Amino acid sequence: MTTTVRTADHTAKLRESLERELACFFDSKRSAAQAFGAAFAQLWNIASRHIQGGKLLRPLLVLDAFDALTESSNEGTSGGSVPGTTPDNRQAAVTIAAAVEILHYAFLLHDDVIDSDVMRRGRANLIGELAEIGAGRTGRSGAEHWAQTGGILIGDLLLAATHQIFARVDVDASTRIRLFDLLEHTIFETIAGEFADVGLSHGVVESDLSSVLAMTKRKTASYTFELPLRAAVILAGGSPELEESLRSAGNHLGLAYQLQDDLLSTFGDAAVHGKDPYSDLREGKQTAIMSYARMTSVWPSIEVALGDGNLSADTAQQLRRLLVECGAERFVQSLVEEQLAAFYEVLASRGAGAEIPAPLRSVLCEVAIRLEGRQA
Amino acid sequence: MTTTVRTADHTAKLRESLERELACFFDSKRSAAQAFGAAFAQLWNIASRHIQGGKLLRPLLVLDAFDALTESSNEGTSGGSVPGTTPDNRQAAVTIAAAVEILHYAFLLHDDVIDSDVMRRGRANLIGELAEIGAGRTGRSGAEHWAQTGGILIGDLLLAATHQIFARVDVDASTRIRLFDLLEHTIFETIAGEFADVGLSHGVVESDLSSVLAMTKRKTASYTFELPLRAAVILAGGSPELEESLRSAGNHLGLAYQLQDDLLSTFGDAAVHGKDPYSDLREGKQTAIMSYARMTSVWPSIEVALGDGNLSADTAQQLRRLLVECGAERFVQSLVEEQLAAFYEVLASRGAGAEIPAPLRSVLCEVAIRLEGRQA
Repeated sequence: MTTTVRTADHTAKLRESLERELACFFDSKRSAAQAFGAAFAQLWNIASRHIQGGKLLRPLLVLDAFDALTESSNEGTSGGSVPGTTPDNRQAAVTIAAAVEILHYAFLLHDDVIDSDVMRRGRANLIGELAEIGAGRTGRSGAEHWAQTGGILIGDLLLAATHQIFARVDVDASTRIRLFDLLEHTIFETIAGEFADVGLSHGVVESDLSSVLAMTKRKTASYTFELPLRAAVILAGGSPELEESLRSAGNHLGLAYQLQDDLLSTFGDAAVHGKDPYSDLREGKQTAIMSYARMTSVWPSIEVALGDGNLSADTAQQLRRLLVECGAERFVQSLVEEQLAAFYEVLASRGAGAEIPAPLRSVLCEVAIRLEGRQA
Repeated sequence: MTTTVRTADHTAKLRESLERELACFFDSKRSAAQAFGAAFAQLWNIASRHIQGGKLLRPLLVLDAFDALTESSNEGTSGGSVPGTTPDNRQAAVTIAAAVEILHYAFLLHDDVIDSDVMRRGRANLIGELAEIGAGRTGRSGAEHWAQTGGILIGDLLLAATHQIFARVDVDASTRIRLFDLLEHTIFETIAGEFADVGLSHGVVESDLSSVLAMTKRKTASYTFELPLRAAVILAGGSPELEESLRSAGNHLGLAYQLQDDLLSTFGDAAVHGKDPYSDLREGKQTAIMSYARMTSVWPSIEVALGDGNLSADTAQQLRRLLVECGAERFVQSLVEEQLAAFYEVLASRGAGAEIPAPLRSVLCEVAIRLEGRQA
């Protein structure tokens, strides 16, 4: 396998082009919003500020994958392009990559509304910031309701905007429809996963390991890995077979990523990942960790404290210890390893038209390696 | 002016074609949802049931306007088609009309989430029904949260679906972009109006008559009247000038309609309109009625009770009396009349290319007449 070295400098350039695209989008919205009152313009301002500073994981994956598919020769590698692919849609790829980030933010916002979260990455999120602004002008509960409303509505606007970008991007008609098919599938699946997540938390949906894993896969893998990779194939003019290989690779990577996320949220170092260290325990999130613990003898001692909104740090730490001792942590680590193994198998497969070309294999391997060493 | 008689039979046929289109849409979604678990399929089932039985006001307006623009001869009238318009997009008009109803339902759902409403037209709405189902399986508060989540997520899915329908409808590329422009503007404006509505209710946004009227216009006129009428012009291949005339006519009709709605909600007969008769008073909605009352000497007696979630029927009736006595009811009635007068002026205008053809004038007049005699 060839190894493409994606230098920090190269990534910085991609990031810059994405940030320019996003800034351009938000500038135009903020200016249109002026005509609808100061509060509406402010809502767009805050959204614009909060979308900045993200890791841009998903849009960078679109561009890295697109470039790997269309570069006719990568310096320092013997890899080449896939037959039939074309770099013509390079600018369209930047536009679609930015739209993928906008969709991600729309999902995050509605997630935060649903979870009543007012913080993200250790700072007030959009809803938290709106609540502060509102509190200066009205009572606390009115301000909170107004802020939640803002979260719902700006999420709607960004969801709509994602579709508008897909409708207007400069590609041919059949590429556009392939992109719309992908977007439709992605949103349907992600939202199904989110609905299952909340249903499982409240015990409205019965919680067993296979339901929890299906939910985990849907709510993250679909839009975080499958969407960027498949979008890149479509934009490069790659075959449906190649798209299916990338879907499968993204699916395994995505599940590994979300399971890793669950492990970090429950056992990780809050000082590093920056989230509330016990929020999953307080919300009683039904992760694979819990599904495993549920089958062990310590479950009654865990269940009694799980989902308590006022869980003390002491009790939370005791819960963590129980989850380690019963083998739940180790079990989920083994699931991550299984998914990564399945991912490498997809990379190695050699079906007609389905073979992932060497430069793209390198990109994907780098993602997998980062994932394995992930702390935040 | 010619008078086109739209018979009950004709309307029934249009309604049937719309219901078939909607049923087809929901069947395909329900069947796709099966793969994502029983709860997700159930969510689509409930949405499908609740969208039925609506008045189909907006999609019927699309079709009536489209037919009026493209019929080369209306039986019993001397009216004709607009030069350059074409009935080729008749099937596309049915599809877009159904999408307009889907968008309407998406807005209603998020509105219900924002207002914590669990009833609509005197029966449990989607959220109320989900809460009942959830309550059988978990605690009351968990069920309510799950139900609200369902409301947010199905609203997102329907908002996305509206765009998907626009992206796939069988029209030429320039018509599609005109439709996407219209959709973008409509969603932006409607959501700006909704955000202002909630901001005004909580006093986060300062409440004066002009802000309240701007909000009232945005949150209703834009998607209830302007969207259907402009979509019909675009689908028929009508000119931008004609589209602008229809926008203006729809704008005046829409504001009249929403002001009428405010009057009915506050002073109307609950047995006829089927809504909670005091909900606007309990929520402290900032309607034009309140903006007027705020400027009169009785305001302190009104303000003290307004926005009390536990408002008694006695106090509510007293509030109503005060609102009548101070002239607020009469004032808003006069605003309705003004808007209708402005609407008839647009109908009478004779600018180049902007003249609304006779058959469409008839359709619009019928809408205005129904509006004037409206009880529910």
